[in-house]
Amino acid sequence: MTPLSAAHDRVDARAPEHLDLLCDLIRRPSRTGHLDEVERFADHLVKVLADAGGRAEAIRVDAGAPIVYAEWPAPAGAQTLIVYSHYDVISPEPVEEWTYPPFGATRVDGKIVGRGATDAKANLLALIKGVETFVELEGGPPCGVKLIADGEEERGSPNLPVFMDRHAHRLAADAALSFDGGFDARGIPKIGLGTSGMLYVELTCTGARHELHSAGARLFVNPAWRLVWALASIKAPDERVLIEGFHDPIAPPSAQDRALMAAMPWDDAAQLREAGLPSFLTGVRGLDAVERLLFQPGLAICGIRSGYAGPGPKAVIPDRATAKLEFRIVPEQTPETVLDLLRRHLDRGGFGDVAIELLASVETAKTDPDAAIVAATVAAARHLYGASVLKPTEEYAGRQGAWLGRRLGIPGVQTGIGPPGFRGHATDEFVTEEHFVRGIKFAVEILARFAGRPA
Amino acid sequence: MTPLSAAHDRVDARAPEHLDLLCDLIRRPSRTGHLDEVERFADHLVKVLADAGGRAEAIRVDAGAPIVYAEWPAPAGAQTLIVYSHYDVISPEPVEEWTYPPFGATRVDGKIVGRGATDAKANLLALIKGVETFVELEGGPPCGVKLIADGEEERGSPNLPVFMDRHAHRLAADAALSFDGGFDARGIPKIGLGTSGMLYVELTCTGARHELHSAGARLFVNPAWRLVWALASIKAPDERVLIEGFHDPIAPPSAQDRALMAAMPWDDAAQLREAGLPSFLTGVRGLDAVERLLFQPGLAICGIRSGYAGPGPKAVIPDRATAKLEFRIVPEQTPETVLDLLRRHLDRGGFGDVAIELLASVETAKTDPDAAIVAATVAAARHLYGASVLKPTEEYAGRQGAWLGRRLGIPGVQTGIGPPGFRGHATDEFVTEEHFVRGIKFAVEILARFAGRPA
Repeated sequence: MTPLSAAHDRVDARAPEHLDLLCDLIRRPSRTGHLDEVERFADHLVKVLADAGGRAEAIRVDAGAPIVYAEWPAPAGAQTLIVYSHYDVISPEPVEEWTYPPFGATRVDGKIVGRGATDAKANLLALIKGVETFVELEGGPPCGVKLIADGEEERGSPNLPVFMDRHAHRLAADAALSFDGGFDARGIPKIGLGTSGMLYVELTCTGARHELHSAGARLFVNPAWRLVWALASIKAPDERVLIEGFHDPIAPPSAQDRALMAAMPWDDAAQLREAGLPSFLTGVRGLDAVERLLFQPGLAICGIRSGYAGPGPKAVIPDRATAKLEFRIVPEQTPETVLDLLRRHLDRGGFGDVAIELLASVETAKTDPDAAIVAATVAAARHLYGASVLKPTEEYAGRQGAWLGRRLGIPGVQTGIGPPGFRGHATDEFVTEEHFVRGIKFAVEILARFAGRPA
Repeated sequence: MTPLSAAHDRVDARAPEHLDLLCDLIRRPSRTGHLDEVERFADHLVKVLADAGGRAEAIRVDAGAPIVYAEWPAPAGAQTLIVYSHYDVISPEPVEEWTYPPFGATRVDGKIVGRGATDAKANLLALIKGVETFVELEGGPPCGVKLIADGEEERGSPNLPVFMDRHAHRLAADAALSFDGGFDARGIPKIGLGTSGMLYVELTCTGARHELHSAGARLFVNPAWRLVWALASIKAPDERVLIEGFHDPIAPPSAQDRALMAAMPWDDAAQLREAGLPSFLTGVRGLDAVERLLFQPGLAICGIRSGYAGPGPKAVIPDRATAKLEFRIVPEQTPETVLDLLRRHLDRGGFGDVAIELLASVETAKTDPDAAIVAATVAAARHLYGASVLKPTEEYAGRQGAWLGRRLGIPGVQTGIGPPGFRGHATDEFVTEEHFVRGIKFAVEILARFAGRPA
């Protein structure tokens, strides 16, 4: 058993190769939803994983992008870690606003600029190269590793639950870890122990068979009004969701959760300045704001459309009206029960005419902060970066480490190795060479510590 | 004084020329808002009016389209009629769905197909040729005639009130008449004695300086919700406008109005079939529906926009939300007072953040059915077409005869000579040769009867 410092030396020695490979991956477009691109990328990724000693394959789930899956067997008596990241990227529009070509992987001032540079190709490759380092030095990682590289993360990972059901027999593991995203503004790794749940629906009201002249508005149904009234029945101006039973099951955060929240950095003023707003909703501040963000459900109108939107007046009764609604839910709620409550609420309120289409959902997840994988990740972060931030759960809703863990009945955490402000989903996304190379060491450290190896 | 039959013979004798001139006018595009086109058209129209013996000029009102104005002096002791129509037309898109070119004036099966064929070039030219017939036979019309040819009717006639204020000294008249639109489905001329008023506003709520991730929806203001709540505060699902004082001043229709409504053709089932709806709002039917349509105010959402409207989910808090709102108002209300009530309502309800932009307004107008111009128009219609339909007011809001009359303190009526289903604003708009030529005689008859000439 080599000392971990040898593993880090090995990462440094091979850093130029690893960086070249990262650039090569960035240069291979894998825009989410572009099946030809993601399929080509998946086939290539299988080769990268085989080179890293993994037993790898691209697995199709129905008509979706392949999930690339790889395994490295566990040493006798060792536990297995299931790791997750993704290879699809957000489309780079508006391309003309990039300083460098989005799929050029331009290297400048220690940065690599390109779509997917951090989100999540640097993250994914750091995991792979972390495992590979052990393969090269010791013939295999110190714990078993199973890797899921999602090809639809940027579209809400619709196939991931199906994949996990179909392949449950091979996914057994003792803990889950995902690498995606990056550090906070101070350069400190965030370690997430949970995820918000989410239910995203589209409501539709229909009226006459085509738009009518608004002169008839006194006689003909207006679907925009129907939608407005239905929406107003769902949430009140004091931000409370009015759906019967919606708030009932919600427990306050535990003492442990409160302690973690109190330890989180939080700056009301900075957040409000960035948004250009004078205050948070209902005037909450500080720790109350954090608690609201992480432990209370929310309901956003993400879009609403009806009728005429051009310049000037147009006298028209719309023939349809739609609203995209996103519920952020807490562990006591599930997407299914909220959907059911919503339907019942609308029916009872006289809005049986409002159609509901389910567009996306994510179940909540929450990991015990005392779990071994949490301790391993926190220790690795402290060793390499000097600090870490532990989030008891996320305001974001994603199928990352904690979600994966819940699905498998094991603890799970999520973190990411991107530099502060890495411009995920924006133009000029980047990673730094430093963050990527140290990210590989982060993976090395977590694997070793999870396997019980001394630092 | 020639007998009126001689005037009709003269119209028939010159019909081929009049039809050629109509086709020439249709072939000259005058799309509303296209200043170069409407200015060229206005200059040409001045020549057409001079040929018809009028003292004509194109009058600019600020940056808008010119209003073409012409006068024929009144014989000694005779009254003066002010007549109105318009020369601008709706843009013909989608051009590829026309059977014949929109500005081709194609003659086929007794029809002339083209944008503006009925709306309003046939109407406008019928007025002009009616006057010209008297000029040719008798040196001038039997009553004084002042003609306003609007160049912005299809844009809500924003300059017409300004024009009338600036040129009040020359617009003195005893009654007003407009020619625009056409007959009802049975081929019977509609004669309108009033107009709905209208107030068209855009409400805007703004949020953060840019769209935010919906994960923050529990803390950051969502302008789409603000707008929904504001709108729901304005009108209730029972269709009552909740603005304090809005319904207060409204008187029920008079016995005379009720008699006119009862005489109007009205078919619930046909209207609902065309709209593809099972019933009118709140279940009204028959005469109650007519009364609701003509004598109750209404409030339509004509459009509403916020956030993301593409396919699938997008997790976003919109940065702004807008709604286009149209109030249809009754004679006891004015656009100004309704706008004022709306602002106060929003402020009192905690929606001071909702901005209101005025996009358009029309004042109501209502003419006494016993006025001489009404009798002259009804008699002319009965003589030429065998019947007429008298509407006590319109569900539409337009600056036509009744509006013009109110503005000048005189009675005013509106009618139109287009064939049933003339496809105004749609593809393949048309007029028939028969409707146009008889429309000239309609103008002749009205002028004569208004001047007290025997039939």
